[in-house]
Amino acid sequence: MTGTAAIVAVGDEVLAGRVTDRNGAWLVGRLAGAGVRVVSRVMVADDPAAVAAAVTWARTQAELVITTGGLGRTHDDCTVAGVARALGRAVLHREPSAGDPWPEVAFAVVAGAELWPNPAGLAPGQRVTAGDTMVVLLPGPPAELQALAEAALLPWLRESGNPGIVRVTYTCYDLAESEAARLLAPLAAGQHPRIGLYARPGRLEITLESPADPERPGRVPLAIRRLEGWLHGVCPQPLLPLGAEERPGWIVAQLIARRLRVAALESLTGGMVMAALVGVPGASAALVGGAVTYTDTAKAEMGVPVQILREFGAVSEACARAMAEVARARWNVDFGLATTGYAGPTGGDPGHPVGTVFVGCAGPAGVVVHRLQLHGDREAVREGATDAVLALLQAALAADGTPAGEDMEL
Amino acid sequence: MTGTAAIVAVGDEVLAGRVTDRNGAWLVGRLAGAGVRVVSRVMVADDPAAVAAAVTWARTQAELVITTGGLGRTHDDCTVAGVARALGRAVLHREPSAGDPWPEVAFAVVAGAELWPNPAGLAPGQRVTAGDTMVVLLPGPPAELQALAEAALLPWLRESGNPGIVRVTYTCYDLAESEAARLLAPLAAGQHPRIGLYARPGRLEITLESPADPERPGRVPLAIRRLEGWLHGVCPQPLLPLGAEERPGWIVAQLIARRLRVAALESLTGGMVMAALVGVPGASAALVGGAVTYTDTAKAEMGVPVQILREFGAVSEACARAMAEVARARWNVDFGLATTGYAGPTGGDPGHPVGTVFVGCAGPAGVVVHRLQLHGDREAVREGATDAVLALLQAALAADGTPAGEDMEL
Repeated sequence: MTGTAAIVAVGDEVLAGRVTDRNGAWLVGRLAGAGVRVVSRVMVADDPAAVAAAVTWARTQAELVITTGGLGRTHDDCTVAGVARALGRAVLHREPSAGDPWPEVAFAVVAGAELWPNPAGLAPGQRVTAGDTMVVLLPGPPAELQALAEAALLPWLRESGNPGIVRVTYTCYDLAESEAARLLAPLAAGQHPRIGLYARPGRLEITLESPADPERPGRVPLAIRRLEGWLHGVCPQPLLPLGAEERPGWIVAQLIARRLRVAALESLTGGMVMAALVGVPGASAALVGGAVTYTDTAKAEMGVPVQILREFGAVSEACARAMAEVARARWNVDFGLATTGYAGPTGGDPGHPVGTVFVGCAGPAGVVVHRLQLHGDREAVREGATDAVLALLQAALAADGTPAGEDMEL
Repeated sequence: MTGTAAIVAVGDEVLAGRVTDRNGAWLVGRLAGAGVRVVSRVMVADDPAAVAAAVTWARTQAELVITTGGLGRTHDDCTVAGVARALGRAVLHREPSAGDPWPEVAFAVVAGAELWPNPAGLAPGQRVTAGDTMVVLLPGPPAELQALAEAALLPWLRESGNPGIVRVTYTCYDLAESEAARLLAPLAAGQHPRIGLYARPGRLEITLESPADPERPGRVPLAIRRLEGWLHGVCPQPLLPLGAEERPGWIVAQLIARRLRVAALESLTGGMVMAALVGVPGASAALVGGAVTYTDTAKAEMGVPVQILREFGAVSEACARAMAEVARARWNVDFGLATTGYAGPTGGDPGHPVGTVFVGCAGPAGVVVHRLQLHGDREAVREGATDAVLALLQAALAADGTPAGEDMEL
């Protein structure tokens, strides 16, 4: 691994979190594939002095500094001014001229920058070499940033010949972080693979990360394979491959490849399960539909037996089972998913405190229901329930006989 | 405004974006209420040297530095070590002793830190004074961070007597960012209110921000009111109060207060509209349910006339209108919402390219359908469609006669 990068995201909205910065996560993933590790991300306001301070610091942390956002032409777009100040360069106001590969608009440029045409918008990307570091300016709209990175930044990085970084994530249910830490302690001293633990609602994610084998860049390196084998041996609970972010993509790909279809009846998750699947391009071939049945009336109208709702209540193993079966039967699909529970902050009943969740998956091999006790706020409980029901579907697909394909290994 | 803060989020998962950092946005909002402006946020890996470098830089940017995460006891929790290194302090390993207000576990402490009991978990918060700056260490799980901030950090900040910061956001449809910049140019020079523009799919958000009036801390300050009036006068398009993040909370509060109910039939948004509403505590009183009808078959089964699907197609004004009416009638509610369109990256038909979206809202006063042409990737199109249909509902509620209440002003 020869390259490190720091990302500076410019913008009041991103800094305040009113807009989720999708560029950072996207760049981290794509840069890893080009062998570059992101060591820090900074978010700053639309203010040239703040941008200059962040870029100056970022240059002390990494060889490559990438700024995102603030390249437009409104008064609060100030990335060019900030970068120029950090590097002691002038700002040039470039007027359009015939034969330019960019649109005929004036824009500001850091003196000495190489310009990259923007395939999806107006503002070109800029690359400035300054001493031992390189500063790359990319526009903020994700579609423009991604198009520019794919067209110019990533090819340029790949030419440098770095092997990529391979990351493998496992999810383990019913394993406390402290217990996992004890199990993994013998490995903490080693440098590679790098091990990360992340406790999420109701589960623990374990990531293993290592430089790719230059001979076989697409495959999981031997160091990770060895550690995987050891993990499977020492963990008291089964390890489910993939982390929460990768699960919907894997599931949709498997469903499409095997011509299987799914529907969902969601209560506390209120559409998050379907939204997670629909977020994958091509999902329309696999997700037939589903319903959000937030009240008992809505559940009954969809076909959940009133007797079950009366006898066991909506937050029960029996109701989750019935909901999964209803989803499967009503939409005439291979897999029916169901979620029901108390997301909080209020609610719950004796024996079912806030955070009690039942998730169900009805498939050709029968119905599986899990009861979870999730901790955290409303959003955490709903997020945990969403991943848990998708994990049931993943397990059902993995057990379904048909080979899961090469993807499964990654 | 007397205080500035910088946030250092520690953790591989947050840095990589595999986990959305909800703490940053939450802290920005709560600190603003206590009169403290967040000027930068940094995300770093689980590495003491990286934490130390980030804290050192953050101290040059703000008077208050808040670290989040990395306070557990696994090998990758290293915030205490990093902060201690940045401040030139020792790390103390504190053994439990009788009478402590914290659980009986050993934990690491920055020498000289004041400890704050954690009402929701094990790791206490820590506050260290160092020269002109203060460093506060908070745990990463949002429930613990929020409990600790509410119990210790925010009361301590409020005692300093800062007035809060008031932020007002408007959404404007069909106004290009460049046109908005031209309109707002006369104001760019002034310091207060601070004006931010954010171009989102299909719309522009304008935020005005100003210190609260110390005499009337909960009200919108005069400076913002004046600017609002001016904005309404110069904008060629109507301004809808609230930004996308505030809209679901306002809608749910209005629905509950007026005892109105809503249901949704979602196609391309695949559950995102319902998920946005369900994300608000108490939503179960207002959101009865809804369905994701991703295919024509699923739409027809819910009650969309087959003739409409055949004659106009699923991505049409007529279909959106029928879907909204079906949602309203089927769940017997006051408002029925509908979304249909092409999210991409493939799809579309002659006359309806990718990004063509129809959103509909059926209410007591009739049905309103808007056609949008959204740009950006799949997620951007879906996000734009979700906000657009909620904006229709907001407009319908605002026009509904019943006073919107004091909340509307904020």
